[in-house]
Order: sequence, then C-alpha cells, then structure tokens
Amino acid sequence: MASSSFSAAASAATATISSSHRHQSLLLTKPFTHNSVLFKQPITLTTAPSLRPLKLRASSSSSVAPLDKTAAAVAAAPPPFPDFDFNAYMLTKAALVNAALDQSIPLARPLKIHEAMRYSLLAGGKRVRPVLCLAACEMVGGDQSLALPMACATEMVHTMSLIHDDLPCMDDDDLRRGLPTSHKKYGEDTAILAGDALLSLSFEHVAARTPSTVSPDRVVRAIAELGSAVGSAGLVAGQIVDIASEGDVDVTLEVSAHINKYINK
Amino acid sequence: MASSSFSAAASAATATISSSHRHQSLLLTKPFTHNSVLFKQPITLTTAPSLRPLKLRASSSSSVAPLDKTAAAVAAAPPPFPDFDFNAYMLTKAALVNAALDQSIPLARPLKIHEAMRYSLLAGGKRVRPVLCLAACEMVGGDQSLALPMACATEMVHTMSLIHDDLPCMDDDDLRRGLPTSHKKYGEDTAILAGDALLSLSFEHVAARTPSTVSPDRVVRAIAELGSAVGSAGLVAGQIVDIASEGDVDVTLEVSAHINKYINK
Repeated sequence: MASSSFSAAASAATATISSSHRHQSLLLTKPFTHNSVLFKQPITLTTAPSLRPLKLRASSSSSVAPLDKTAAAVAAAPPPFPDFDFNAYMLTKAALVNAALDQSIPLARPLKIHEAMRYSLLAGGKRVRPVLCLAACEMVGGDQSLALPMACATEMVHTMSLIHDDLPCMDDDDLRRGLPTSHKKYGEDTAILAGDALLSLSFEHVAARTPSTVSPDRVVRAIAELGSAVGSAGLVAGQIVDIASEGDVDVTLEVSAHINKYINK
Repeated sequence: MASSSFSAAASAATATISSSHRHQSLLLTKPFTHNSVLFKQPITLTTAPSLRPLKLRASSSSSVAPLDKTAAAVAAAPPPFPDFDFNAYMLTKAALVNAALDQSIPLARPLKIHEAMRYSLLAGGKRVRPVLCLAACEMVGGDQSLALPMACATEMVHTMSLIHDDLPCMDDDDLRRGLPTSHKKYGEDTAILAGDALLSLSFEHVAARTPSTVSPDRVVRAIAELGSAVGSAGLVAGQIVDIASEGDVDVTLEVSAHINKYINK
C-alpha cells in the first residue's frame, strides 16, 4: 500500500510539473478505488487559481468502455465527497507543505545562496502542485508522509522555473508575488545558481527523505519520472515553446495546438 | 560486487563534481583491494590537465595508523601498475563515454533545445570526471557498465556548470573549447534552459539507465550523493565562492583557505 500510493503521488506530481502553469487539471486513466467504489473510467481532477471546488468527474469522451457493473456501482454510491471543504483542505495541506519546505533548506553557509533559495521558495503561493501530490497519495489510501518529499520536490522545481523564467533574457520580470524577483534582489548570477541548486535539491530531497517504507525501486522510478517531467521533453520544452511563440499573434489558449505547432518546428 | 563497485564509482564521481575544476585528485580513505593487495592507508589518485601518469601513493600525513602486516604486504608486492598506459586508458575510456553521451540525448523535438544540449555536451574535453567514475568502479572489481550512467551524469552536470558559468552575468565568455559558447550560439535563454535540462537529465539518467543488477537502494543513495555534490553545499557553493572572490587580489591557489574564507561569510 505504501509503495503503490507513493507511485500514484509521484505520477500526479510529475503530471503537474509537465503541464502548463495555467493547466491545473489531472487526468487519471488507471483504475483506482475510492470510498470502496472502483473507478474504471478516466477521471479528471480540476483546480483553478480561484480555488473552486475539486471535482471528480468521469470523462464524457472516454476511450475506455464502461463496465455495466462498475457504472451501476458508481450510480448507486453516495457522492464521493459529500462534506468535502476544498478551501480548508487546500489551506491545511499548504501549511504542511510550507513547514516541510522551511525545514528543507536550513540557513547554512554560504549564506547568500541559501538566503536566495529560501527567499523564492518560501515567498508564498497556493502550493497547488505539492497538494495535488499529497491528494493523489491519500486518494489511493496512502499516508501523506510518504509523498511529502516528492511534494516538496515539485515546489522546488516550480520555484526554479519561476526564478529562471523571470530573468532579463527570458520574461524580464521585476516582481513576483508582490516582491522583487530573485535577480532583482540578489543579482542575475545568484538567481541562476539558486535555481540550479533548487533543481538539484529536488532530486536529492526525494532520494534522501522519502521514508524507507517506500521500496527503493519505486523511488528510483519516481526520480526518473520527475526528471522526464522537468527536462527537455517536459517543463523545459514548455519554456522553449514560450520563447518560440513570443510575439506570435496567432497563439491561442489551445495549449495542445500551441505545443504541436512549436514543438514540431 | 555489482552494488559495492557501483557505490565506489558513485562516490568517486561525486567527489569530482564537488571539487574545483582545477582540483583533479581523489582521496580514497576506505580500505580496498587491488591486485590482491589490501590498501588500508589513505590513497590519493592524482591527474592533471597534461595527462601525467596516474599515481597511486600512500599519504605521508596519514591519520590512519598503518598495520605492520599490511605495510609488509604493500612493500613486498609488485608495483600496482607495472605496464599501465595512462594515456591509452584515458583515451579508451573517453571514447566509451563519448559514445554513451551521444546516445543519451537523441536529436528529438523540440529540436533547438536538444541541439543546444548536444552542442555543449559533445564539444569534446578529456572526460576526466566520467573516467574517474569508471576507474573507481573497476578498481574495486566492478564492470564499467554498472557505472556508465553515473559517469555520463557527472559530465552532464559538468557541462551544465560550464554553460551557466559562461553566461554574461557570470564569466561572460565567448569561447569554450575553441567554439562559441552556448549563449553566443543559441541565445542566453536557450543556454540557461539547456543547462537546466542537462542537470535534470543527469539525475534521470542514473535512475533510468543504471543496470538492474545494481540494487535500487544503492541507486537512491547515489542520487542523493550526486544531488549533495551539485547543490548549495557542493558545486553551487563553489560558484558562489567564485563570484564572491571576483576582483579579490588576496585569493591564492590554496583552495581550502579560499573556500573557508568565503563560505564563512
């Protein structure tokens, strides 16, 4: 149970990393059980910046034929989250994540790089990615402590991407969450290095901090998946697409068309 | 044997990453056996850019008291490498590493980022770090195939550090190994992203490509060690020291004093 819930969390986490910053939904295509109900249809978990309620809904354009028994069981079951308070859930989990992130980078020497890493990592935010990671773990019956290092890793990667994306040669932003961007506060050189250190720490954190009750082979697979989600076929590919599309008035919000257009250049 | 030799290789690899670019020596403090001789004293493997012969020598300032029997065995044994051709060894291993690096990044879409990654990674170099990794594996009786993914990872990390170090806000170099630096050829944005993708790939490569004969718990530990060697207490700390020391005429080649001086700021 520990290992399978960790794998679900890792998959959810890497799904959030490789998706767009605006694309805060998660498609689960593998069967899973929740509240004793077996879900066999593709399920989409959707969130938005406004923190609207989490919805569990079957895809209307499912490519998996529903089984009559499963459909009947789903129809007969009570609503999956009758008393679910999404806002409270998000805030509680975000507080847990914030505490873990705070502990993940002590203010050690050399001071400047650790200050810069902590400055950006602890500057706030809804912590959507790590909370989705914890939620995926809990959804399949796991204890959130199993997924907490991976949850923190997703936020470290996200923060790295923001620091580097804010640089003058990228989006050239002066402010992030109402505060000076990393390079405005610490200089471009330190900002780049803070991003590098956060990216490195994300992998180290999963490897060194995941509880030993998770089998090491699953940790290895999760690290491979994290790397794939971050690298040249994942997050970095998305950034390259952003650069390629700059100034292009034909770009629409249709992310798939957008990516197809530029990735296939 | 597979796992212990992998661990030795991983330790050697991370030792080369966290050391200075100029500091191409490796201190082995744990006992090991070579050519049926048990080495219990600290041993230093030293290389230099001029490819002078590899030396295996006991430390004169050993903090480990030699055992009489071991000392006698060492004295009676033949020279450890009577016919060792260091240059041929380096060239053979470098060719193996180059072939593996070439395969590690296919020229996939999006083309620009993969071109940039391959441009810097395959631009040449002595491959000292990966060869030391393979040598450490072989020294303790392992097959080099066990350590090859970690060896490649060290070169990916090294290349990332060079790309980011060459940027205008860092050392502002136009040439690297006789060719335009990454940002001169592809632009600063793509250069930063190519470094990010290489760093991410280094961890993914170890996780996904290390042979299954190496136990996953050792792979997890090696990834944690790699992260530690790269991050804010390793390679990035060294870069921060370089930035802090810029223009300081008091900086000497005494690396330890240098690091102590700046890391303790």
